[in-house]
Amino acid sequence: MQLAETIKLARVEKGLTWTKIAEAIGKDRVWTVAALLGQHPLCAQDAQTVAALLDLGADAVTALQMVPYRGSDPSLVSDPTIYRFHEALSVYGPALKELINEEFGDGIMSAINFRMSVQRRADPQGDRVIVTFDGKFLDYTWNNTEQEVSP
Amino acid sequence: MQLAETIKLARVEKGLTWTKIAEAIGKDRVWTVAALLGQHPLCAQDAQTVAALLDLGADAVTALQMVPYRGSDPSLVSDPTIYRFHEALSVYGPALKELINEEFGDGIMSAINFRMSVQRRADPQGDRVIVTFDGKFLDYTWNNTEQEVSP
Amino acid sequence: MQLAETIKLARVEKGLTWTKIAEAIGKDRVWTVAALLGQHPLCAQDAQTVAALLDLGADAVTALQMVPYRGSDPSLVSDPTIYRFHEALSVYGPALKELINEEFGDGIMSAINFRMSVQRRADPQGDRVIVTFDGKFLDYTWNNTEQEVSP
Amino acid sequence: MQLAETIKLARVEKGLTWTKIAEAIGKDRVWTVAALLGQHPLCAQDAQTVAALLDLGADAVTALQMVPYRGSDPSLVSDPTIYRFHEALSVYGPALKELINEEFGDGIMSAINFRMSVQRRADPQGDRVIVTFDGKFLDYTWNNTEQEVSP
Amino acid sequence: MQLAETIKLARVEKGLTWTKIAEAIGKDRVWTVAALLGQHPLCAQDAQTVAALLDLGADAVTALQMVPYRGSDPSLVSDPTIYRFHEALSVYGPALKELINEEFGDGIMSAINFRMSVQRRADPQGDRVIVTFDGKFLDYTWNNTEQEVSP
Amino acid sequence: MQLAETIKLARVEKGLTWTKIAEAIGKDRVWTVAALLGQHPLCAQDAQTVAALLDLGADAVTALQMVPYRGSDPSLVSDPTIYRFHEALSVYGPALKELINEEFGDGIMSAINFRMSVQRRADPQGDRVIVTFDGKFLDYTWNNTEQEVSP
Amino acid sequence: MQLAETIKLARVEKGLTWTKIAEAIGKDRVWTVAALLGQHPLCAQDAQTVAALLDLGADAVTALQMVPYRGSDPSLVSDPTIYRFHEALSVYGPALKELINEEFGDGIMSAINFRMSVQRRADPQGDRVIVTFDGKFLDYTWNNTEQEVSP
Amino acid sequence: MQLAETIKLARVEKGLTWTKIAEAIGKDRVWTVAALLGQHPLCAQDAQTVAALLDLGADAVTALQMVPYRGSDPSLVSDPTIYRFHEALSVYGPALKELINEEFGDGIMSAINFRMSVQRRADPQGDRVIVTFDGKFLDYTWNNTEQEVSP
Amino acid sequence: MQLAETIKLARVEKGLTWTKIAEAIGKDRVWTVAALLGQHPLCAQDAQTVAALLDLGADAVTALQMVPYRGSDPSLVSDPTIYRFHEALSVYGPALKELINEEFGDGIMSAINFRMSVQRRADPQGDRVIVTFDGKFLDYTWNNTEQEVSP
Amino acid sequence: MQLAETIKLARVEKGLTWTKIAEAIGKDRVWTVAALLGQHPLCAQDAQTVAALLDLGADAVTALQMVPYRGSDPSLVSDPTIYRFHEALSVYGPALKELINEEFGDGIMSAINFRMSVQRRADPQGDRVIVTFDGKFLDYTWNNTEQEVSP
Repeated sequence: MQLAETIKLARVEKGLTWTKIAEAIGKDRVWTVAALLGQHPLCAQDAQTVAALLDLGADAVTALQMVPYRGSDPSLVSDPTIYRFHEALSVYGPALKELINEEFGDGIMSAINFRMSVQRRADPQGDRVIVTFDGKFLDYTWNNTEQEVSP
Repeated sequence: MQLAETIKLARVEKGLTWTKIAEAIGKDRVWTVAALLGQHPLCAQDAQTVAALLDLGADAVTALQMVPYRGSDPSLVSDPTIYRFHEALSVYGPALKELINEEFGDGIMSAINFRMSVQRRADPQGDRVIVTFDGKFLDYTWNNTEQEVSP
Repeated sequence: MQLAETIKLARVEKGLTWTKIAEAIGKDRVWTVAALLGQHPLCAQDAQTVAALLDLGADAVTALQMVPYRGSDPSLVSDPTIYRFHEALSVYGPALKELINEEFGDGIMSAINFRMSVQRRADPQGDRVIVTFDGKFLDYTWNNTEQEVSP
Repeated sequence: MQLAETIKLARVEKGLTWTKIAEAIGKDRVWTVAALLGQHPLCAQDAQTVAALLDLGADAVTALQMVPYRGSDPSLVSDPTIYRFHEALSVYGPALKELINEEFGDGIMSAINFRMSVQRRADPQGDRVIVTFDGKFLDYTWNNTEQEVSP
Repeated sequence: MQLAETIKLARVEKGLTWTKIAEAIGKDRVWTVAALLGQHPLCAQDAQTVAALLDLGADAVTALQMVPYRGSDPSLVSDPTIYRFHEALSVYGPALKELINEEFGDGIMSAINFRMSVQRRADPQGDRVIVTFDGKFLDYTWNNTEQEVSP
Repeated sequence: MQLAETIKLARVEKGLTWTKIAEAIGKDRVWTVAALLGQHPLCAQDAQTVAALLDLGADAVTALQMVPYRGSDPSLVSDPTIYRFHEALSVYGPALKELINEEFGDGIMSAINFRMSVQRRADPQGDRVIVTFDGKFLDYTWNNTEQEVSP
Repeated sequence: MQLAETIKLARVEKGLTWTKIAEAIGKDRVWTVAALLGQHPLCAQDAQTVAALLDLGADAVTALQMVPYRGSDPSLVSDPTIYRFHEALSVYGPALKELINEEFGDGIMSAINFRMSVQRRADPQGDRVIVTFDGKFLDYTWNNTEQEVSP
Repeated sequence: MQLAETIKLARVEKGLTWTKIAEAIGKDRVWTVAALLGQHPLCAQDAQTVAALLDLGADAVTALQMVPYRGSDPSLVSDPTIYRFHEALSVYGPALKELINEEFGDGIMSAINFRMSVQRRADPQGDRVIVTFDGKFLDYTWNNTEQEVSP
Repeated sequence: MQLAETIKLARVEKGLTWTKIAEAIGKDRVWTVAALLGQHPLCAQDAQTVAALLDLGADAVTALQMVPYRGSDPSLVSDPTIYRFHEALSVYGPALKELINEEFGDGIMSAINFRMSVQRRADPQGDRVIVTFDGKFLDYTWNNTEQEVSP
Repeated sequence: MQLAETIKLARVEKGLTWTKIAEAIGKDRVWTVAALLGQHPLCAQDAQTVAALLDLGADAVTALQMVPYRGSDPSLVSDPTIYRFHEALSVYGPALKELINEEFGDGIMSAINFRMSVQRRADPQGDRVIVTFDGKFLDYTWNNTEQEVSP
């Protein structure tokens, strides 16, 4: 997580937006920010581009390409901006399950074959944050033919 | 939570979809399922409509109208369909915060002035679950004028 | 979880093995036991077959067909037979991740498009329990083209 | 855990696969990765071989030979590649217990007299990750003759 | 949290009260202390003013302007001065909810559009601490018209 | 907590507001609701008045007079209306401590010699919830003269 | 756990010692008490003997023969008689590991191929409780020859 | 815990067994290892002996003589060699309590007036680890005569 | 804990003080209340005396004589009257340890060979609650002579 | 907590008892040790006296005068000397509450207007540790007159 902190500070000191960095490597903004906060590996070229923008060293270029152990620090849930998403899941999570099952059958929305966006929708009563979770439906398939153990 | 279990069973025994119930009361599907699982109060008329559809008693009609103590049982997070949303927040939550702050300034997406939808998007490589969180942006406003305590 | 307890007792009182019940519905043993312990829905016909074998009532036939909220009681981890699998993951889990990433690239073994078996391998120094996890590899795909929010 | 981090970085910087390192010491891949991540002691010769491959110092050679306090950092369970194995145990763990008891009697699969493999099985619908747990069955034996305490 | 510790020590060594610092930047005292303890970003000018007062470096000026990940260390709840507020919520929290719902309808007091004060009220039997929570009421609004997913 | 549930239902069925009940016993609203939710004992006369209003039995009259084991169910913190108060403490709690110490010296706001109110303040941009914590300041006094143990 | 409570009460009401019950079925005392508290299955004959001694019904005879989900309620650790064993492990556990490894090599004391006794040793300064853990040593064996997955 | 880590490394580098160190100070092995891992204070002479054997500095000599805050890191419970003892207590703990109460009356085995040993018992089916807990029985005595508080 | 609730209600309904009940059985008040709340066994005669006073049945007479699994429900710590004792330990616990060690040497205050009292001391500035913990000092004795395992 | 560790080491290296340090500043022993372990602020003169005795620097003199965030590290509860006090509260805590309420009415023993002592009482069967908690009784007062919010 040390590298993520370095990146967050460097971005502000360089006066760069996340959007600018995402454009520099030609990736979506959510994906790019997640990657730079340690949740996705960059390819070698993107790692070098980012390191050049943010004045990071060679170690960082290597580290940015390694497959990370994903998952953010659970203590961040206390941040109100992050908490509201958890609250929404606490209130609506079982409803999401019921409706996914009703529409698609028994299964899940993949969080791997997945993409997400954050957008602004103008509204006269106050603009709205629109966050979209977009994942492939996976059904609970099981090929019911037991195989013998190889002797 | 007892009433929610009763409703889930009654729905299946009556052969009703959640969508049908939502249409009967003219409300969105996510809102309706959440309400029937104990996360929102119904108005008197909707409570009676639902009770009639599902053969619930008078006690249920009253209970469905009370403002609930919200929040689903945390042990439900272990359900894979629900867990994938939590996993997505663990991976992308800080990125959401960074981009909301970049786009809107310091603040949050409201989870109260809020709506959510579950939809299917056809895709040749497998249909996709599209879940949208749609909440009003609230900025961290503070009216900086200390007031005196009333004597 | 009440129904699972009833089924476990009925199975012993009827003198049936899990294997016999699995054969009666033509499904794999691990899948069948998991389903009867509340982790998978049965189709109507299988639910009736099981209910007939175990003398379960009509309510059970309905309940066995509902998509369950999955996940076993976490306190069961203290059972030594179950705990050994958790211990193996504690010792070898990161190694599994490293080798899956080395062999397949960045991604996961699906636990949804998945099957599992328990088998016995004879061994002169004591027979061995062979448990196989068999899931489709899913890579971390992200279609990098941000879409506009619909106005 | 410091040494494990050093090893993970050195491996990437040297451009070595885990498989290559395992071959260099003539051990299985899962065992080798687990050992290098701090879960098994190496013999002196293997420790030296690994240190030479990865440019580790004399301290590391000693440390790699000490019997470790096993168990990976529980926070790693949030990594999706690792989590899927825990999810499978949550869904299928009690079924594994029932079937081990049915096949072998009252007892456990040893996690000590144990080996594990990760393999790829080609599949036209997407290759599959095959992980095998292979442990000796141990039954709950108790020699029922109380002994007197030595006076 | 490192910067917060530095600020707390510097304030005492400089012999400054929190009130003086708040006056220097023209903000409320609660807001100012919270900001300096890492819960709100300062504007550039206020960050420079504070840094000048407390002899902080250029890094601190930048850090004080970044949107923080909010939420204090949960272990601070054990401090008796802080604990009493948590105890009051444990005893009176559900009563607050009931009365907010009775007075305003279904909804919440915003903790974002929010201000708070600490004041002293003289009392012959011992002066009293008066803490006021002042937040905009937000009702649970949901615009009940499902929208189609953009194709 | 059973009695509290009974009271909440009876209140709605009788069509009584909490305010009406509080007026009937001549006590503050926050105190009254807290007492009826099991956080304060009522005197005998008030217990009878409440029981008459809500049609409670003789057992309830006795139970309402017993000194309760205080503290609400911690799972209620997930309710958004209650959570916002906890969030405010997470963000502002250390600031409250610093300012209480600055104004009053080393000590606490009593949560025993304490009163609390919930009020509405009209505001053209949306009415506001005003919650006041009002407790006697207690300083950390210690009479520094060790006494001998009685022999 | 219900059956265990019934057995504990019945034992006292019948005026039987655990030792007498253990003698009746010819098993060690620790094993017998553990079995009757739900930690081991009895054979059919022993189950009937115990049921006859304690006036238990036919359901209990069946239940006593089922392989249990082992592990006592973790809240029992607060009992001082049980806690002292946990305290001893907290103080001496790592020392036990070091000495087992020094004496036997890398491995564990089995808790499955295991027996335990509780005895009294007379001592002029107060009799002593002697508890012996007696388990087979298992070394960390791994047969280092990767096998191919069966195609 | 830093000193304990230093000692564990120094012991291996010096090629000393724990048994040798215990003999050098004339204390039992379990006591000696526990002391060196930070669970007991050494007398000055023993501290100097150990420091000489392991090349520790003067600070270590002082630190080894201080009464420690006892209790090992709870995360060590995940180590399989240590876990098996906890598993045995989970399975047999309540049985130990029942038999201690039956043999000695209401009370506990002291973990303070206590000693423990680890030994090997040869066995043709595999040698056995014998661990003995040996503590003075303490009964729940209470001198039932209330004393007046000294005025 | 069911019996404790029954006793608490019966005491109030009979209009008895705890002091009266303690006098009736000739035991200290703290001991008596603890026993009736399920923390100590009564002798047969005292159990009958208490049952007669409180109109308890024959089952209760037996239950009151059984050695209990001690330890109160941890959730009671949230009660302010109980919490203050925990807070005092949080603030002063390490100081108690340092001073016990300084006065008595390495060891503990027994909580088994122990008595406790609650008393009132009149004070013009408000009467004081005086609670005395009175336990035998136990030193960390270890008889340093390893014994051989009995063959 | 760093300063507390420094002080504990310095005290032993200087060969000073806690009692001597307490006498040097003319305060009670429990208060003094608690203060030096970070639970109370010292006045400037006492801080200088302590720093002179223990050779602490100017930073320490400042730090010792700051109002601390109180509460000791919860992991210290595992220390047996500290744990026994927690065990006593687990066994006797509810009895303390019942007797405080019986003697004083509804309220608490203050842990702020509070003092504590540790003493030795000679006893032919082993000297006893006498720990006294001495706090002002505070009753649950509430001034039942709702005040209007200031407009």
